[in-house]
Amino acid sequence: MSDPDKRIAAVEAYVAAFAASDADAVAALYAENAVVEDPIGSPTHHGREAIRAFYAESMKTGAKLTLEGPIRLAGDYAVFPFSVHLHYEGADKRIDVIDTFKFDENDLVTEMRAFWGQRNMHGF
Amino acid sequence: MSDPDKRIAAVEAYVAAFAASDADAVAALYAENAVVEDPIGSPTHHGREAIRAFYAESMKTGAKLTLEGPIRLAGDYAVFPFSVHLHYEGADKRIDVIDTFKFDENDLVTEMRAFWGQRNMHGF
Repeated sequence: MSDPDKRIAAVEAYVAAFAASDADAVAALYAENAVVEDPIGSPTHHGREAIRAFYAESMKTGAKLTLEGPIRLAGDYAVFPFSVHLHYEGADKRIDVIDTFKFDENDLVTEMRAFWGQRNMHGF
Repeated sequence: MSDPDKRIAAVEAYVAAFAASDADAVAALYAENAVVEDPIGSPTHHGREAIRAFYAESMKTGAKLTLEGPIRLAGDYAVFPFSVHLHYEGADKRIDVIDTFKFDENDLVTEMRAFWGQRNMHGF
């Protein structure tokens, strides 16, 4: 059975995993056959191992996440606004993002979509 | 051609239409065959006329919207966090929501999905 508390905990674990640069901890939040699209319109990553590799690469930028408002829980989804902070080419940068996590019945993420674009990138 | 400025303007017009309790102004943002799902998991509203009627009913609560962060623009989407403020059964109430607007090539909204649930309702 789905559990709203577990879905909130998954989002908090996602933020914490970036703080720890722990790609394995992020991958563990996903179902085996999950799909990640980050950002929307880019090639998707299929399966937990490809997803782990994608996050390991992202974390090389030192990216850290800050929640920027309450997590919205609706149907099978948790949706949340956040900012990404990273240091890249000698400067501090920020990206404003909203992610949608779709969960399966075991509260694992089956689909993640990250909404951000050029207008949401600051300091680049 | 799609225009990011028009998509931002559409979100701002959406907020302004609630401020003016103007369901026609909201409906005008939608394509003729648009679909609205608000909240996720509830029956959808198909077509501009059904959508207009849905918003006219919503506006009877006096609901006003406040943007709670930057609009994220990604691919065909504008996604934005906001709060809904309404006065209902003698009390002030707030709902925290994230909407996704998907646009067509004329920058009309073809699909709206509203992410909020019981955990996002305050004062009810």
